[in-house]
Amino acid sequence: MPTTSIMNLPDDAVTQVKEYLLDLQHRICQSLEQLDGGSQFIEDSWIRPQGGGGKSRVLAKGKIFAKAGVNFSHVFGNALPGSASQHRPELAGRSFQALGVSLVIHPENPYVPTSHANVRFFIAEKDGEPPVWWFGGGFDLTPYYGFKEDCQHWHQTAKAACDPFGESIYPHFKDWCDRYFFIKHRQEARGVGGLFFDDYNEGGFEQAFGLMQSIGNHFIKGYAPIVEKRKSIDYGAREKAFQRYRRGRYVEFNLIYDRGTLFGLQSDGRTESILMSLPPEVEWHYNWHPEPNTPESLLYTDFLPIRNWL
Amino acid sequence: MPTTSIMNLPDDAVTQVKEYLLDLQHRICQSLEQLDGGSQFIEDSWIRPQGGGGKSRVLAKGKIFAKAGVNFSHVFGNALPGSASQHRPELAGRSFQALGVSLVIHPENPYVPTSHANVRFFIAEKDGEPPVWWFGGGFDLTPYYGFKEDCQHWHQTAKAACDPFGESIYPHFKDWCDRYFFIKHRQEARGVGGLFFDDYNEGGFEQAFGLMQSIGNHFIKGYAPIVEKRKSIDYGAREKAFQRYRRGRYVEFNLIYDRGTLFGLQSDGRTESILMSLPPEVEWHYNWHPEPNTPESLLYTDFLPIRNWL
Repeated sequence: MPTTSIMNLPDDAVTQVKEYLLDLQHRICQSLEQLDGGSQFIEDSWIRPQGGGGKSRVLAKGKIFAKAGVNFSHVFGNALPGSASQHRPELAGRSFQALGVSLVIHPENPYVPTSHANVRFFIAEKDGEPPVWWFGGGFDLTPYYGFKEDCQHWHQTAKAACDPFGESIYPHFKDWCDRYFFIKHRQEARGVGGLFFDDYNEGGFEQAFGLMQSIGNHFIKGYAPIVEKRKSIDYGAREKAFQRYRRGRYVEFNLIYDRGTLFGLQSDGRTESILMSLPPEVEWHYNWHPEPNTPESLLYTDFLPIRNWL
Repeated sequence: MPTTSIMNLPDDAVTQVKEYLLDLQHRICQSLEQLDGGSQFIEDSWIRPQGGGGKSRVLAKGKIFAKAGVNFSHVFGNALPGSASQHRPELAGRSFQALGVSLVIHPENPYVPTSHANVRFFIAEKDGEPPVWWFGGGFDLTPYYGFKEDCQHWHQTAKAACDPFGESIYPHFKDWCDRYFFIKHRQEARGVGGLFFDDYNEGGFEQAFGLMQSIGNHFIKGYAPIVEKRKSIDYGAREKAFQRYRRGRYVEFNLIYDRGTLFGLQSDGRTESILMSLPPEVEWHYNWHPEPNTPESLLYTDFLPIRNWL
């Protein structure tokens, strides 16, 4: 008689995750609409011809948010793309299901940081073998003009999301985030980090799903107070120009390195939903660097270098 | 007694190619300065710590050109990066030299198309084996508001560059260009094409080098008359907004697909020189499409679909 493995999936695993993700998308959009106080999300449902589909929600030209996209997707297919399984080449080509919520928020005011969050669940299946499954995700913050107390609040929230599942998790996922959101060709962090995890199934489905939920639920607790605190700071053309310039880094990271973006494009996801993470207005200037001892140079000296914020 | 193989390289192959490329860079920059009639190129020489270096020339905020970058580089290293040898995996890891001129020109006036050209020479070496070498390059045109006669002139010039080397070359390189500059995730061409070739050593060094020179020399003959013809057309906020939006496609192509960009970043080239191909001002708008029967929709219906322009 076979014993029940801790790695077994409950029969309704996909249903459970899907319900959680749709609810999370709903709650985050509600919070963002309240924060914005002006615009509403519009919703587009889409079907992926090869299997699955999604629900994209976008708020554009709000009072606070220049562009906020909160995507739900559930896709499946016959062959797992390389970007999903690059650390486990033995899984490439398996049939798969992937469910996730992914969001990127680009505020109008350069004193309010851009933020990103993602939670996802993968199952890779093969006839005659038990399914391989894992969770992944995290959230990270990308300020233009940094505030130390905001970074501390962000990382305290990240730690609070992880601590119920073991005190070693926050430092582990924090380091992973610092390594993942690193723009190699610039030798520069994308922002001040947060959490990143992948290939996670520790303790079995309930435990791992619980951790993913905790991280998803803590995103708004981390972000909303920062938006409230910074949304009314005055700014002018100089700060907007710096914001547009720095958003170029966001584009570079997402199109060159980001696993979610590449997975989406490689798996023939809906392009407009995948690329809604790109900022609305961006500038590139050849060999531009901030003058030393300016508010702009502080980002490079005091915020982007990787450090322990707690 | 061994016979001389047609694939042998002359002892001064690198010197010959380098002299040609530096002269080409000089001539193109001169022509662009004359066309612009306002700004001059600035020059940055750079050294690559792992071997080689380059000379970047950039003209920014000119009367005609918002940003024009014309790069020369000569890099060498111990292990050929994957992006350079993706169609010849047997060469990956060889020691290599790469010389090239690469340029991208982003005009201010949306009625003047963006253009790109590149010519390059690779040698991949391994102890005890003859060196493997090849030329590559081409040029292509990316209009925002298309003109049929400009596309015809561009392709006639491309054909004139190739015809002395065989009449099958233009259609071959034209098709290759259409396939290469295709934005898969948009199912859309980047522009109206031109020429693209790679891994080219037909007929031996002199013949292949001659073809590369002909293509390099024809770039300005193709582009300058189009700039002259369109530079004085009136435009307003609508045309600028469409130009910024369409430039987003250029960014997507260069950062996701372009072999030269990926080769540069993977071989630890100078980031500011590699990414000077990116447009100065760019916008992304979620799920934006031009209204039917507008000047903007004509780009999609009459210019981007791949066709024979001659």
